[in-house]
Amino acid sequence: MEMRINCGMNMTDKVSTTEKIVTAAMLVIGDEILSGRTQDTNSSYIARWLGELGIRLSEIRVVPDVQAEIVAALNSLRARYDYVFTSGGIGPTHDDITADAVAAAFAVPIGPHPQAMAILDAHYKPGEFTEARQRMARIPDGAELIDNPVSKAPGFHIGNVFVLAGVPMILQAMLESLRHRVTGGAKMLSTSVGGAVAEGHVAGALGELQVQFPDVSLGSYPYFRRAEPGSDKVSSYGVNFVLRSTDAVRLALARDSVRAMIRAQGVEPEDRD
Amino acid sequence: MEMRINCGMNMTDKVSTTEKIVTAAMLVIGDEILSGRTQDTNSSYIARWLGELGIRLSEIRVVPDVQAEIVAALNSLRARYDYVFTSGGIGPTHDDITADAVAAAFAVPIGPHPQAMAILDAHYKPGEFTEARQRMARIPDGAELIDNPVSKAPGFHIGNVFVLAGVPMILQAMLESLRHRVTGGAKMLSTSVGGAVAEGHVAGALGELQVQFPDVSLGSYPYFRRAEPGSDKVSSYGVNFVLRSTDAVRLALARDSVRAMIRAQGVEPEDRD
Repeated sequence: MEMRINCGMNMTDKVSTTEKIVTAAMLVIGDEILSGRTQDTNSSYIARWLGELGIRLSEIRVVPDVQAEIVAALNSLRARYDYVFTSGGIGPTHDDITADAVAAAFAVPIGPHPQAMAILDAHYKPGEFTEARQRMARIPDGAELIDNPVSKAPGFHIGNVFVLAGVPMILQAMLESLRHRVTGGAKMLSTSVGGAVAEGHVAGALGELQVQFPDVSLGSYPYFRRAEPGSDKVSSYGVNFVLRSTDAVRLALARDSVRAMIRAQGVEPEDRD
Repeated sequence: MEMRINCGMNMTDKVSTTEKIVTAAMLVIGDEILSGRTQDTNSSYIARWLGELGIRLSEIRVVPDVQAEIVAALNSLRARYDYVFTSGGIGPTHDDITADAVAAAFAVPIGPHPQAMAILDAHYKPGEFTEARQRMARIPDGAELIDNPVSKAPGFHIGNVFVLAGVPMILQAMLESLRHRVTGGAKMLSTSVGGAVAEGHVAGALGELQVQFPDVSLGSYPYFRRAEPGSDKVSSYGVNFVLRSTDAVRLALARDSVRAMIRAQGVEPEDRD
């Protein structure tokens, strides 16, 4: 269920009905994610980081280390969303092709960036700024660098695209340094209530609440616990209800209604926040 | 770096050079992933499961619970890959819109499926097979059911698309029951070697190895450990090299070469498998 901006008449509401919804996409570049060897945690980190800034992550794509795939995905996403964040493929080895792919997507030349060369030259011991490492200073024309306080090799920012490292520790540090370059809109607030109810018992009431609160997104997420590891048998189950809105007052009202809906099943609701 | 099929002349090689590369895409449907509240682990599970069957996961997309988004992504992916797997949105509540979106994508009608109705009717106590739960028996015309041994509400399979639950325990059980419906190709084998080397020191040698082993994908993944939680300071670092090929003999040869490359840095290689 897509969230809609609050149209209520509550005068304490600080969110304007005309405030822009700012969107973003995440493009994860990496064979290691597609093989299942590495679990992508960067997307969920960026999702929460963007949420704090009032930017809504609206799509995630994971593509392999193949230039044509990166170019096609990037051009599709950057045309559609306010911001695009990429992760991965900016190191010194042969499989690090992201900078070239981004240059190709923007149809701009790529070459050694003087400031990036200087940062890396100063970082390495004499003779250690190898040809391979100089690859990390190749930046598309017109891009601005993104600081990397961990291992120095910078990310970069061109148009509405932010190119970040794949190593989570570096990606997270880069995000902090680019915070002032993005502008958010209405901030999505969220809250969660759970209970040992069956989805099928509350679905009707929940659907009615969604009609009553068109300005609050009501998500319903059942959970099951296995009786034993690997077993198909369930020992316990329940539902987490996640409520999201840009309007704190409406969110609190909707949560009270969800709590009452759970109590009507003879179950005590549990706050999950 | 895209893997290429082995063209070597080793007569013990069991992988035919003409064996088809079978591909798949994963379509994750769910606002809860895009908000960062829930970490998607289904994609990496499916990636490994497919890998065992000789099917290569080639793209992952995550889209919100919005019909037009699901339809557009599904039609794009099913035209391009041999198989598409979806997760999420097949429960009884108002935000469960996947079955309707799949029917729309295939331009077929949707309605109560007799066998799904019978399974669910038998599962619930008298009077408990509510209207909301009957929603879970709505299946696009022409689809075949996928067994759900955990909570009974079935997934389904239409064309080259497999529609699965989002709850990991159910998704995993559904995959076991559909294993015979997919046909794999050349199985990708993989191995990993690590060492406390700097990427910039080995990048040149690694690039040369990639030229020498065009039939083995050589991935290089640096890691960093924080000196303290939350710190930008690094206490240790190294690189994991991941090698992938459909040819076990060439894979072993390439691994020996990577081990020698690490040793040439004065570092003892560590097997990561």
